[in-house]
Amino acid sequence: MNIKQEILRAFRNHPHEFISGEYLSQNCNCTRAAVWKHIEELRQEGYEFEAVRKSGYRLVSSPDSLSAEEILSAMQTERIGKNIVAYETVPTTQVLAHELASKGAPEGTLVVADQQIGGKGRLGRVWHSPKGTGIWMSLVLRPVIPIGRAPQMTLLTAVAMAKTIQEFQISVKIKWPNDIFVQGKKVCGILTELHAEADRVNYLIIGIGINVNNQQSDFDPALQEIATSLRLALGEPLKRSQFIQAFCRQFEQLYLSYLSDGFSQIKIEWEALSMSLHRRVTVRTLQTVLEGEATGLNDEGVLLLRDDQGVMHKVYSADIEYSET
Amino acid sequence: MNIKQEILRAFRNHPHEFISGEYLSQNCNCTRAAVWKHIEELRQEGYEFEAVRKSGYRLVSSPDSLSAEEILSAMQTERIGKNIVAYETVPTTQVLAHELASKGAPEGTLVVADQQIGGKGRLGRVWHSPKGTGIWMSLVLRPVIPIGRAPQMTLLTAVAMAKTIQEFQISVKIKWPNDIFVQGKKVCGILTELHAEADRVNYLIIGIGINVNNQQSDFDPALQEIATSLRLALGEPLKRSQFIQAFCRQFEQLYLSYLSDGFSQIKIEWEALSMSLHRRVTVRTLQTVLEGEATGLNDEGVLLLRDDQGVMHKVYSADIEYSET
Repeated sequence: MNIKQEILRAFRNHPHEFISGEYLSQNCNCTRAAVWKHIEELRQEGYEFEAVRKSGYRLVSSPDSLSAEEILSAMQTERIGKNIVAYETVPTTQVLAHELASKGAPEGTLVVADQQIGGKGRLGRVWHSPKGTGIWMSLVLRPVIPIGRAPQMTLLTAVAMAKTIQEFQISVKIKWPNDIFVQGKKVCGILTELHAEADRVNYLIIGIGINVNNQQSDFDPALQEIATSLRLALGEPLKRSQFIQAFCRQFEQLYLSYLSDGFSQIKIEWEALSMSLHRRVTVRTLQTVLEGEATGLNDEGVLLLRDDQGVMHKVYSADIEYSET
Repeated sequence: MNIKQEILRAFRNHPHEFISGEYLSQNCNCTRAAVWKHIEELRQEGYEFEAVRKSGYRLVSSPDSLSAEEILSAMQTERIGKNIVAYETVPTTQVLAHELASKGAPEGTLVVADQQIGGKGRLGRVWHSPKGTGIWMSLVLRPVIPIGRAPQMTLLTAVAMAKTIQEFQISVKIKWPNDIFVQGKKVCGILTELHAEADRVNYLIIGIGINVNNQQSDFDPALQEIATSLRLALGEPLKRSQFIQAFCRQFEQLYLSYLSDGFSQIKIEWEALSMSLHRRVTVRTLQTVLEGEATGLNDEGVLLLRDDQGVMHKVYSADIEYSET
């Protein structure tokens, strides 16, 4: 941890309290002058401190910042999100995460950007990632699993994301495989990519885009009918760093349980959160179009579809639409 | 096709025959002077031509070259190996193939090098790829399959390689999953890597290293007991470009059959060529060590092992050793 991060963490650990310069200097193993310099820097970044003679400093308010220091200042995980690489503007966090992973970045490395200018969703589709409104991030994972099980990680991520949004008192549904819907509109997209050697996953990159503080007018007219943000659902903005901290906690919990106990618990939670089951759906794959009822996941995490003749189909990569709503 | 390639192809199509400069010039759509210039260039590269007034040119002998022109001059495939990227010395063809694939290189693109200075085998192990002795190449594929089926492509490649070596009258066995053995020593290693998006294979890179013309003394002392070359098995050197052409033909045939009819035929051929079945083996995975008898592949291509208690295990990424030989 660097000094700025230590200082922020001290304030997070003592919310609303005054902390003496002496304490900060000892805690962060630096001089009083260095403490003062970093507090000034934090003020430049939008943090507000009250300074009272003899009492020290009190953190009054924080900006909606996605700096590594801010995100790490209250991170409660052991592995996921403990190595943060934060950027203001990038083409896409996904490509940067691939580069870091191929050079050996540890599991849990999280690449975050305040703005993406080349964000992509599934199947190469454009993903809008405007500055300061959302969370655009990519998580590096190294699960020791056969590659056939990798799609389970996509479903796990959707469950972690849904549970994180629920923590903020917003009700949420998952559209197969991993789109997150709030009030009938998409609020989050997830893109899983992986690099494998033979049948062993080498690394897996989970790209996540969440509309957090977008106002209605921030969306392109074409998107306003189908996209929403957490702020629009909640009625007030929320701190993106807090959301990332909450997501990393939820994700780590599910991930560790998955690595030790397998997919069965994830399957139950995914099915409970799904908006895709027991409905009439149209499934479009690259090869074919199927209609029928989505009945659930099998033990591997593959979506099962029963067509009108009663034949069961396994659905891998596809788009689904609801034939009736 | 460039002119040099057209000229070489004309000679391949008329082996041992004289071809007139006039014919070559018309066939390659260039001037007689250009034909002469390219023939001179080919001579510089080690091709021997007999030139007889009024009759024209006859190709007497070719060097053991891995130029794109040489490899393409007798390529008989539709898709596999129709786009050749040839280098003298590279760190590793695998990384170059990844780069080309991520930029959209078409299926069947083959990256070939005369020498690798950073060749890698499975699990990051060093692979020796000295200059001029072997074939170090990486093939870009884009099969539309769920990622769980990707390991089948590794088995398919091993079968294609084994059948290619058999074409040269050398008997051969496959050690699970994809090492190729001749006379009890390893002659070829195969490394499959893939990039996937969600559950769809985006591209797959098959890296292949074959010891072709190595002499006994070309191998490090530590390798002499366990490695061999096709030349050592055959008693004479062979043309590496011919081997690549034969491999691409064998591979394409199996690959097209796999894409249309699935894995069942590959499974039969792999099992027939395997040296790993019905033997007592020790299987080391990252997590555990198993002992028992390898009984075959299941329909997905996963190796099945029956342990001493009669329990069947699926073997994914692992090393196997023979407990008795």
